[in-house]
Amino acid sequence: MIELVALDADDTLWHNEPLYTGCREQFRALVAKYGHEAALDDHLYEVELRNLEHFGYGVKGFVLSMIETAIELTNGRLEAGDVRTIIGWGREMLAAPIELVDGVREAVEALARDYPIILVTKGDLLHQETKLARSGLGHLFKGIEIVSEKNPDVYRRIMDRYGVPPGRFVMVGNSLRSDVLPVIDAGGHAVYVPYAISWVHERVSPEALTDVHYHEISHMRELPELLERLHLASQAG
Amino acid sequence: MIELVALDADDTLWHNEPLYTGCREQFRALVAKYGHEAALDDHLYEVELRNLEHFGYGVKGFVLSMIETAIELTNGRLEAGDVRTIIGWGREMLAAPIELVDGVREAVEALARDYPIILVTKGDLLHQETKLARSGLGHLFKGIEIVSEKNPDVYRRIMDRYGVPPGRFVMVGNSLRSDVLPVIDAGGHAVYVPYAISWVHERVSPEALTDVHYHEISHMRELPELLERLHLASQAG
Repeated sequence: MIELVALDADDTLWHNEPLYTGCREQFRALVAKYGHEAALDDHLYEVELRNLEHFGYGVKGFVLSMIETAIELTNGRLEAGDVRTIIGWGREMLAAPIELVDGVREAVEALARDYPIILVTKGDLLHQETKLARSGLGHLFKGIEIVSEKNPDVYRRIMDRYGVPPGRFVMVGNSLRSDVLPVIDAGGHAVYVPYAISWVHERVSPEALTDVHYHEISHMRELPELLERLHLASQAG
Repeated sequence: MIELVALDADDTLWHNEPLYTGCREQFRALVAKYGHEAALDDHLYEVELRNLEHFGYGVKGFVLSMIETAIELTNGRLEAGDVRTIIGWGREMLAAPIELVDGVREAVEALARDYPIILVTKGDLLHQETKLARSGLGHLFKGIEIVSEKNPDVYRRIMDRYGVPPGRFVMVGNSLRSDVLPVIDAGGHAVYVPYAISWVHERVSPEALTDVHYHEISHMRELPELLERLHLASQAG
């Protein structure tokens, strides 16, 4: 029944959000030197959202948003040395080694034996390609789709590109907002694999999930069995 | 004979380098306030090259490189207000209206009537998609390939993806380094359409062109006739 399995990357295959969380902590300490601590997280998030349409997702936009936030919160007193420090964090994030989620390598290898799998991720093109190369999983994927946004149209185009009807496409990822809701909207199947932490932007309200039929597993290794069940259900139905 | 025509975007379909040239001029004036003028262009280019592997091509990386360059050249005296100004330039560049090269719309429309055409461009994913949408040319393309680098492997993957043998693929663009040499290397045809100005990084030495057989036209509107000639030559040969 399932002809194509699409996997999200960040926080589905490898740890990503902890890098941002760690960086936000350093950022708080940096800005605190200037005597500004209150509402820093909220302010940074506002700047990130404001910049999203210009800068898109990814580390470079995050760095630019941190610099802007720091300048605003310090009323322009931010020192050049600290700007440099923030840019340095960006370079470190981009160069950080890939840490696969425990058990993911085996799960993806098993999956790739039974299904064509593709990667669907948003973010910076170069950075996502680099991470996939470093992950050592690249050869398992039939295709890599790095997209600027995950919305129903984007998923429809991907289904078209691979010639797969929506009912035979499944997307697997840790974001209800990006990996589940738009896929269901496009007529596909979606599997939610929660990650310990998530960026506030990726969260959805419980109401948004009313009457949305998706699957949930606690680890990627449960995916082959879930797909098998979907297969049997489709034969029975 | 030709089954797929691939077009570069920046400085082939629409003006791009003038935005960077204009920004570099403003940047020179900004840094000059601190009393540093000598070798500024060289320094910025060095920083851009150093950052290329981390930040890739595009406006965001350019902005981060300008900030780093300014901090280095002012020995850390760069003021936060000026950092903010530089980030503002980035946002302006990203939001700048698309100015098509004169006559390109008609040329691409004519081309699309006779051949499947795709766009092959490097740079920021979101920004390139946005520019294509603003250009009003998007509907003419059968596919959009935004890549992190234009090398022979990337061109081979594109030919594979569209199921076109190298000898039936032609790439058209303004960069000998990105649109011509790697395509020839991958066994395809290449058409060079020079643009008035080019980023130093895109230039190649004359020796690199020895024995490289590519075509050159002065304007995109000469492309249909060139492809017709290629077609006739292949039938005669």
